[in-house]
Amino acid sequence: MTIVAQIRTIAADARQAAIAMAKLPTTAKNDLLMAMAMALINDTPQLIDENRKDLEAGEKKGLSSAMLDRLMLDETRIKAMADGLREVANLPDPVGEVTRMWKRPNNLMVGKMRIPLGVIGIIYEARPNVTADAAALCLKAGNSVILRGGSEAIHSNLAIARILGREMERAGIPQAALSVIPFPEREGVLEMLKQEEFIDLIIPRGGESLIRFVVEHSKIPVIKHYKGVCHIFVDSSADFDMAERIVVNAKVQRPGVCNSLETLLIHKDVAETFIPRIAQTLTDLKVELRGDDCVREFAPQATPATEEDWQAEYLELILAVRVVDDLDDAINHINAYGSLHTEAIVTGDYHNSQRFIREVNSSTVLVNASTRFADGNQLGLGAEIGISTTKLHSFGPMGLEDLTTTKFIVYGDGQIRQ
Amino acid sequence: MTIVAQIRTIAADARQAAIAMAKLPTTAKNDLLMAMAMALINDTPQLIDENRKDLEAGEKKGLSSAMLDRLMLDETRIKAMADGLREVANLPDPVGEVTRMWKRPNNLMVGKMRIPLGVIGIIYEARPNVTADAAALCLKAGNSVILRGGSEAIHSNLAIARILGREMERAGIPQAALSVIPFPEREGVLEMLKQEEFIDLIIPRGGESLIRFVVEHSKIPVIKHYKGVCHIFVDSSADFDMAERIVVNAKVQRPGVCNSLETLLIHKDVAETFIPRIAQTLTDLKVELRGDDCVREFAPQATPATEEDWQAEYLELILAVRVVDDLDDAINHINAYGSLHTEAIVTGDYHNSQRFIREVNSSTVLVNASTRFADGNQLGLGAEIGISTTKLHSFGPMGLEDLTTTKFIVYGDGQIRQ
Repeated sequence: MTIVAQIRTIAADARQAAIAMAKLPTTAKNDLLMAMAMALINDTPQLIDENRKDLEAGEKKGLSSAMLDRLMLDETRIKAMADGLREVANLPDPVGEVTRMWKRPNNLMVGKMRIPLGVIGIIYEARPNVTADAAALCLKAGNSVILRGGSEAIHSNLAIARILGREMERAGIPQAALSVIPFPEREGVLEMLKQEEFIDLIIPRGGESLIRFVVEHSKIPVIKHYKGVCHIFVDSSADFDMAERIVVNAKVQRPGVCNSLETLLIHKDVAETFIPRIAQTLTDLKVELRGDDCVREFAPQATPATEEDWQAEYLELILAVRVVDDLDDAINHINAYGSLHTEAIVTGDYHNSQRFIREVNSSTVLVNASTRFADGNQLGLGAEIGISTTKLHSFGPMGLEDLTTTKFIVYGDGQIRQ
Repeated sequence: MTIVAQIRTIAADARQAAIAMAKLPTTAKNDLLMAMAMALINDTPQLIDENRKDLEAGEKKGLSSAMLDRLMLDETRIKAMADGLREVANLPDPVGEVTRMWKRPNNLMVGKMRIPLGVIGIIYEARPNVTADAAALCLKAGNSVILRGGSEAIHSNLAIARILGREMERAGIPQAALSVIPFPEREGVLEMLKQEEFIDLIIPRGGESLIRFVVEHSKIPVIKHYKGVCHIFVDSSADFDMAERIVVNAKVQRPGVCNSLETLLIHKDVAETFIPRIAQTLTDLKVELRGDDCVREFAPQATPATEEDWQAEYLELILAVRVVDDLDDAINHINAYGSLHTEAIVTGDYHNSQRFIREVNSSTVLVNASTRFADGNQLGLGAEIGISTTKLHSFGPMGLEDLTTTKFIVYGDGQIRQ
């Protein structure tokens, strides 16, 4: 069979298997995930052997040591993978939940019930643990899943899928519900993106270029996560200690992630008092500051910010800082330069907190808390399958529920339409 | 300006206007819709004049009398349009609703708040009333809307948009929030479908060929509604009077719509008793029957059903009828031939009712009620913007809520991430 034909077969079989997946009782899904976790632990030596093939090939190809590290599996990482599966087993099953039910004047009872999406495709880069994580979430939500990892991790990914698949077979669950595309060629991705007849949703996990490539070529709906240019607005009524604590946490705790702070907006009435203090603290923490003229008046260590700085997702210890006239000015800046990811206000003013919550339509909007909470785990969704920065089909951090949709259910006793 | 440049400008302006739309208080939106309704009534003569241009052009082009009738506006239809606007004004505003809120262990309050989608594009065919209906729903949900109606209705659509736009201007609401693409050329549609930077969702309303064309060419997410091959399964425990009433209603009341019945499945244990009765009733109502061998044994007037009949959306007084072994057989038939639109069971058996509700994953699943209830109004959503038969971003009949998404809102008191 050609690659094209094989991928079509994988997708068609996944669609068929999705019918059985949708009907699986919660206990069967949980038992499966627990058994998969155990199997990963038991097969640790084989997994490390397969992973070594990827590492050796990666070294030959001259991958950076950072890339090789991301690729590497050892006992600790395999145990973490297994723990991840157990964690998903412990999450509530979204399938079958009736989110609402109401009565019509003709006594029909109408409700909305969560059902699986069907078949989900995940396209990701080097970390092999995504294979287990993403598979667990998709299966728990009653879906089939087709995984296409980076070519560098192909042996590791196939080995993980083999181990998980064996447990599915043992449990009498169709193995076609979990596939890894076995071709490292890009042709495989392209063909996968054409299976709109069989695949309901594509979730790319990786850098902006991967996501743009997928969006460009997909005939299937794609969850998009382009970038996180996150803002904090320090209002004139902010508690300075709180503001400093939140700004430092958002910028410094883990600068390389999408929910870290990139632009700090400061109300002009507190520019003179707050800027010297926060600038000093950040400079001590090795944060490079880029400010507008007003910021630089009170923080001479800041270099001049340019138009590009307001758009930048630095992902490192650099911070753009701007003084704004008021809340409106702050919101206008966020509307103009934000990426719809995450924004926070630090304020003591009731009205401004409510206006910020209402009027900033980014996917996560916080009052008096760090932007770093924009994360499925932190918000209480359990494990996270990704973050969407576009409004369809989900917006913001996505958990198990976002791998489902709802159908209408209607209980009648013979009603007909007049 | 070229068509391309003008459409890009319309879309960019709509995106800008969406910021103001999202902030509009409910009362401002409701007052606007009431004023628009009044304006349509007051401008009835001008509207009829403009509509006459379309009708004359249509006659010259040789449109069918059915097409010309759909195109025609008179006092009654304009009043109905105005009533539609008032009805939308009376619906609850979905924007700002907090659908859930929970507390995290660190005392963060996390919630999900409904926000508008942003900019919605509607692509539709000849009926000019869609211009007012769709605009009202999109605006009420806080969105900007770009309308592209059929070229045959261009004068009517532009006149309606002019009247509605005048009321927006009076109310100080940016007119760019409501546009009609003023070009009858197909190039206009194609260019609109490329504005993924500015348009969040495309809703096509019309026949399958229009929807396929839009899906094929859109870079923007599209609500798809291909067809409705709706089933009713008459279980062995069904009350025959109820089953007959429901089947007749679903097939005969309005056969030309997507939620009408196309295939009737009958449990083998009641084939001998129920088929002669229902066949006679349907034949008396001029329904042509196409059945499998078993059906024809008890209903000799039925012609033999072929494979195509199980896939057919007749939209007329024809019904495919099949005898099935049991509930599983019925569900398998629906999975194999259904269109994920609407299916119903008629049963007196508790277990079968629950299994049918759980295991049939069409967008509307009913017990002991007519398939004709699969409609936004009938299910209690208020006015309907369309029906989605794919699972993203909505599934089934769509109301105001489906023109929104949710963002995460977080209330803290200084929390930072550990």
